[in-house]
Amino acid sequence: MVAALDLFAQRGYENTTVIDIAERAGLTKSTFFRYFPDKREVLFGGDTMTDLLATGIAAAPVTATPLEAVAHALDAVGRDAFTPARRAFTARRQAVIAAHAELQEREALKGLGLTAALADALRRRGVADLTSRVAAELGALTLKIAYERWSDTTNTDEFTDVARRTLSEVHAASASSLPADVGSGEGRPAPSPVLGRLRG
Amino acid sequence: MVAALDLFAQRGYENTTVIDIAERAGLTKSTFFRYFPDKREVLFGGDTMTDLLATGIAAAPVTATPLEAVAHALDAVGRDAFTPARRAFTARRQAVIAAHAELQEREALKGLGLTAALADALRRRGVADLTSRVAAELGALTLKIAYERWSDTTNTDEFTDVARRTLSEVHAASASSLPADVGSGEGRPAPSPVLGRLRG
Repeated sequence: MVAALDLFAQRGYENTTVIDIAERAGLTKSTFFRYFPDKREVLFGGDTMTDLLATGIAAAPVTATPLEAVAHALDAVGRDAFTPARRAFTARRQAVIAAHAELQEREALKGLGLTAALADALRRRGVADLTSRVAAELGALTLKIAYERWSDTTNTDEFTDVARRTLSEVHAASASSLPADVGSGEGRPAPSPVLGRLRG
Repeated sequence: MVAALDLFAQRGYENTTVIDIAERAGLTKSTFFRYFPDKREVLFGGDTMTDLLATGIAAAPVTATPLEAVAHALDAVGRDAFTPARRAFTARRQAVIAAHAELQEREALKGLGLTAALADALRRRGVADLTSRVAAELGALTLKIAYERWSDTTNTDEFTDVARRTLSEVHAASASSLPADVGSGEGRPAPSPVLGRLRG
């Protein structure tokens, strides 16, 4: 909410009260509390991002691989959340969070929630559990890096394009961190000869 | 610290004070504060895990791939942290954390710190930035899943064995979430034809 961010920037996060925020936003206190349990949740409230990711994955074509489904979800984020008009807002939100350990902790937990939502949505497509978790981690990492790049104010590209490029790079980096002889694997994962090498 | 966990279990986390913990552990209050800023940090304090992971990666053979270096780090965790004697302790710690949103947030941030430490240690080996971040995420996911499996009290395997098997599975799952035609990539990541397919 812009009113809250303005106040956090002007007075500091600690010195801003719920009453200040409600007043600035033209809300009564009780309306505020209908949406948020406290001032902190103004920065984290709502499940917009989680919903966008889950819906995006569900809407991907049946034939999409896990990472293609993730790409679909990232498109939805670019279309409905990280729009050009929201770039300044999200960058300011990030600056407030970066300045407070308590908010960083909350943000970290929110990140785990997003990853879990991605994994759940993939499992609902019938993707195997572990593959869902791995693809979700790669998707969450892509979202994070793409966000870092997109929120750089010298960058004028749209989020969707940044995310597509980033996913492609994460994808290639993932392949390059795997030894070439693993990956044929359908069904049971074969024990990796590379990991075996270190074992003895 | 066992004394703190005992008290958290008996009285509840909220009802336990630093003085209670110091007394039970046979420490003066000021000695307690030399080690921990508050009672919460008893559960998170210390950089043992971060140090073990970073040192393990640094000690891997020069020829090790990023994920082989991660395997090395997981061995170190099994050798020096998640020992059989510590299994009950870590399970109890986890139970306290699971019961408190505030502690889950702190734990989430600690998880990000571990991932960042893995990525830093890989970069110091000369691994490219993005590959370091991807391998670190896969390593952190492996640590998390292996921990879940190992802390299941019906499981009597040693952490190192559990972690090796898990890394091998994460590895195979990672390969299976990637289309087969990416991964030759040395140097610049090629744009993925699979991602391109969705773009139009």
